[in-house]
Amino acid sequence: MLLYILELVGIAAFAASGALVGVTKRLDIFGVCVVGVFTGIGGGIVRDLLLDIHPPTSLGSWPNFGTALGTSLLVFFLHSALSRLRREILVLDAVGMGLFASTGAVIALEHGASPLASCLIGGTAAIGGGILRDVLVNEVPLLLHRDLYAIPALLGSALVVVSSELGSGPNAALIAGTALASVLRLLALWRKWSLPGPRIVE
Amino acid sequence: MLLYILELVGIAAFAASGALVGVTKRLDIFGVCVVGVFTGIGGGIVRDLLLDIHPPTSLGSWPNFGTALGTSLLVFFLHSALSRLRREILVLDAVGMGLFASTGAVIALEHGASPLASCLIGGTAAIGGGILRDVLVNEVPLLLHRDLYAIPALLGSALVVVSSELGSGPNAALIAGTALASVLRLLALWRKWSLPGPRIVE
Amino acid sequence: MLLYILELVGIAAFAASGALVGVTKRLDIFGVCVVGVFTGIGGGIVRDLLLDIHPPTSLGSWPNFGTALGTSLLVFFLHSALSRLRREILVLDAVGMGLFASTGAVIALEHGASPLASCLIGGTAAIGGGILRDVLVNEVPLLLHRDLYAIPALLGSALVVVSSELGSGPNAALIAGTALASVLRLLALWRKWSLPGPRIVE
Repeated sequence: MLLYILELVGIAAFAASGALVGVTKRLDIFGVCVVGVFTGIGGGIVRDLLLDIHPPTSLGSWPNFGTALGTSLLVFFLHSALSRLRREILVLDAVGMGLFASTGAVIALEHGASPLASCLIGGTAAIGGGILRDVLVNEVPLLLHRDLYAIPALLGSALVVVSSELGSGPNAALIAGTALASVLRLLALWRKWSLPGPRIVE
Repeated sequence: MLLYILELVGIAAFAASGALVGVTKRLDIFGVCVVGVFTGIGGGIVRDLLLDIHPPTSLGSWPNFGTALGTSLLVFFLHSALSRLRREILVLDAVGMGLFASTGAVIALEHGASPLASCLIGGTAAIGGGILRDVLVNEVPLLLHRDLYAIPALLGSALVVVSSELGSGPNAALIAGTALASVLRLLALWRKWSLPGPRIVE
Repeated sequence: MLLYILELVGIAAFAASGALVGVTKRLDIFGVCVVGVFTGIGGGIVRDLLLDIHPPTSLGSWPNFGTALGTSLLVFFLHSALSRLRREILVLDAVGMGLFASTGAVIALEHGASPLASCLIGGTAAIGGGILRDVLVNEVPLLLHRDLYAIPALLGSALVVVSSELGSGPNAALIAGTALASVLRLLALWRKWSLPGPRIVE
């Protein structure tokens, strides 16, 4: 139950980040909602397509869809107030990312995916929404060149997979994976960690 | 039978809009055909992936694929003549959009999707081709920021789902949904309706 | 066995082209790896989604994923040396493209897809990685407007489908399709073949 509420919090945080980008791009109200909804539930939809879950859970579930849509509408109307909440949104987004990475890996394992596939599918669930967001608004995905975002997601998924292989129950694995991914992400934001770029010799 | 012919008309109208964008971007003949074909049958492919219909109908069906390819080739060779048919293409496109929204919702219901999922999948079938078109040619999807396009599609799908829930036969639902979506879209074009953008305080 | 090794060579060549594009765009090390891995195994993932193979082979297979990741890392660290191997990479890429087109068509036929669908799915497996690469780094896909790339892929897939329909064994069909696609691609590179663009009357 707590996990379910946290998942909705994650969807809301993702949707808020998508809708804010839509506002920045001056899309109309529907465009803001589409980008927000895709960012909120897109990662879960891609995860379900990869795992043969039809139709994807988030498309058929009112709480998930409603959370993403409601958050996008809130952002559209209140974005100037929300811009002061930027820090809080980043924290929620980190928690959401950690949750998607861990639950994605657990769901993949439950559907019989191999350890490698489960780790990659968990990572995809966590970062898919952000990639869809940036492709839709015609930007090079942020997480490809600026943010340390996907490494924490993959490490969280990997921890879930490894602890399941070692026989831990799904709940312990979920909590450990979520904590690892979210804390690493918050540390990266706080300490301004970033990855090296290629050495270009002009 | 009439519905099937109208579906091919819709595919042709979508493919024509995709191929015209390709011509504007000065792609070569193959690029124009790829963008045209994707725009024509892309929405149906995404719908079938979401519904677990493998391989997607449009990939395995000569009439659908041939219509999309033939239309794209026609546009490539005759685009200067066709640019005078812009108005007619917009009308056909509105009818195609309405048909895809309604048939998508009916097919989703038949495959056991929930009412919410059926409505969203119908909307996706109607707008998916246009989004793929704009992502491929590296534009922010038109329907996110200028056109009133997706709201009529979603309303058409929703009408189909609601009337099916109320016990109407699929044919009546199909006709009502298609008419609603297409007429709204044509009214939006004719009256130049558009949605409000976010109020940006500089 | 030889075919399997050649498939890994194809994945490596695709991944190298993706990672090189990532380096050119000055992505960080993770971004270069994501673009490289997507380019290397993306075509196969899309093929498996279209054919209902879950989870996609390349996501669950260490050799495929490891080859793509390892090649991307090599490119990241050694890209200045590799830029002198541009010609060799293009040859390997042509062989990989031919192999993906042929194996994609054979796998589709084995999964009961119609001849048309098998031909299109083989072509998609061969060009999907390159399209994902260019969409991720925010370019109009190269193969839509400059390179003669997809026509050889589709002809290779078509040859596989036709020879299977005529009763040849899968091995002969695979070799013939791969050879046709790869040789056409190399000829196109060598003779600088390109397709006509639309005649624009200003």
